Amino acid sequence: MIYQLYYWPGIQGRAEYVRLALEEAGASYIDVALVPDSQGGGEAAIARLLHDERIDRPPFAVPCLAAGRQLIGQTANILLFLGERHRLAPRGAAGRFWTHQLQLTINDFIVEIHDTHHPLGGALYYQQQKAAARRRSREFLRHRLPKYLDYFERVLLRNGKRGAWMVGSRLTYVDLSMAQVIAGLRYAFPGAAVRALRSRPRLRALQRAVFERPRIRRYLASDRRVAFNNDDLYRRYPELDSPG
Amino acid sequence: MIYQLYYWPGIQGRAEYVRLALEEAGASYIDVALVPDSQGGGEAAIARLLHDERIDRPPFAVPCLAAGRQLIGQTANILLFLGERHRLAPRGAAGRFWTHQLQLTINDFIVEIHDTHHPLGGALYYQQQKAAARRRSREFLRHRLPKYLDYFERVLLRNGKRGAWMVGSRLTYVDLSMAQVIAGLRYAFPGAAVRALRSRPRLRALQRAVFERPRIRRYLASDRRVAFNNDDLYRRYPELDSPG
Repeated sequence: MIYQLYYWPGIQGRAEYVRLALEEAGASYIDVALVPDSQGGGEAAIARLLHDERIDRPPFAVPCLAAGRQLIGQTANILLFLGERHRLAPRGAAGRFWTHQLQLTINDFIVEIHDTHHPLGGALYYQQQKAAARRRSREFLRHRLPKYLDYFERVLLRNGKRGAWMVGSRLTYVDLSMAQVIAGLRYAFPGAAVRALRSRPRLRALQRAVFERPRIRRYLASDRRVAFNNDDLYRRYPELDSPG
Repeated sequence: MIYQLYYWPGIQGRAEYVRLALEEAGASYIDVALVPDSQGGGEAAIARLLHDERIDRPPFAVPCLAAGRQLIGQTANILLFLGERHRLAPRGAAGRFWTHQLQLTINDFIVEIHDTHHPLGGALYYQQQKAAARRRSREFLRHRLPKYLDYFERVLLRNGKRGAWMVGSRLTYVDLSMAQVIAGLRYAFPGAAVRALRSRPRLRALQRAVFERPRIRRYLASDRRVAFNNDDLYRRYPELDSPG
C-alpha cells in the first residue's frame, strides 16, 4: 500500500503531524504536491481534489490521505486511522479513545497557536491584524500556553509507565504530534516558550526522545522535511513574543 | 448503564452535541452539574473532576462522559464512542471514519463561530474585545459562513441516499450536531444566517428532520434543554450580525 498525501507545498501545516506518523511507521507515501504537474501532481492536484464533483465524500480541506480507494480527511482522523494500522496507538478500545482524546486536545492547542497571528481571520494578512495579534498573543502566552503545557506535563507524569511517552510504554502518534508542537513553539516564541519549557522537563524529554528516533532523525535531516517558515502555522514574529 | 455527563450548568456549550446523541439514543444519563451538591453533584463536582489528582488519564476540559470506569473527553471523541454503542454511526470502518471526519469539520466550524465574539481570548470579556469581534464577525459572515454552509449542503447533495441525512440513509450523530449548529446560527445571527440558509434547502430540511424526531422533540420541550443565552457558545449581539 502506497499512501497519497494531499497537502499544499512549501509549508508543514497540519500535514506535518501526518508525515511524522507515516515516517515513524516506515510507510510508503507520495506527497502529491511534489509530483510534477505533468504526472498529475503539483498544487493543481490539491485544488482538483478539493473541487472534484465526482467525490461522494468530499473533504472540506487538506490534509487528506488516500489509502486505496478510501479518502480520509481531518488530521486527527487520519492519525486515528494510521494509529490502528501501524501500531501507533494502543490496541484496546479504552486506550485508543484516550490517545485520540489527547490528539484532539493537541488540535485545540494548535488552533490557538495559529490564531495568535491570525485572530481576526485567515483571509486577512498578518499586517492587517497586527494590533489584534499582539493582544491575542499576550493573552495566549499569559493564560493558554501555561495551561496547555501544564496539562500535557501532567499527562506524562500520571502515565506512570517507564519511558518518555504519553500513553503507556510505547510511542503513539500523540507523542509525535506533541514533539512537533514543542518544536513549533520553540520556533514561534523563542523567548516565552523556551522559558516556559524550563519548568516542564517531561515535555522537553519527550521532544528529545521523539526527535532521536532513527526514522524521525532521518526524516528531519531529509529534504522531505519543510523548514519552519513564516507562511506556516508556526510563525516567528518578534513583536508577538515576550522576552525569555 | 447510566452515563454521567460532566459539564458546566446553565449553558448548552459543547455538551449539547453529546446530550442530543444521548437523547436520540434513549440512553440513561445523569447531568452531574444538576445533582445537588449534598449528593456529590453540582458545579463543584465538575471542578473536582478537572482537578482530581487520582485520575490517571485526566481530561483537559469538559464535556466528559463517564461510562462505567471509562472517562471520555473531547466532544467529537465522545460522539465517536456513543456512535458505535448506540447505532448513531455506520458499522463499517470507512463509514465511521467519514462520519467522524464530518464531526471534526463541524467542530472547526463551532470554534470559528465561538471566536466571532471572543477573537482575542476567552479570559477577556466580550466588552473588552468588541471592536475585534466586529471585524472577526464581518470576516466570518463574508468568507467562512458561506464556505462551511456550501460544504455541508454539498455533502447532503452528494450523499445521494433518500432521506435528509448526511451519511447514508440513517441518522447519525453528525446530523444531530449539524441541526444544533443551524439552530445556533439562527439564534446568533438572525439576519445573516437566516438569509444564508435561504439558498441551502438541504440544511434547512436536515434541521427540521432532526428537530421533528420524537425523542428530540420531547427533549427540546423539556427542562433538560438549556435555552440559548449570551453566556454560551452561540451569542446574539446585534452589532455582530448583518441585516437579513
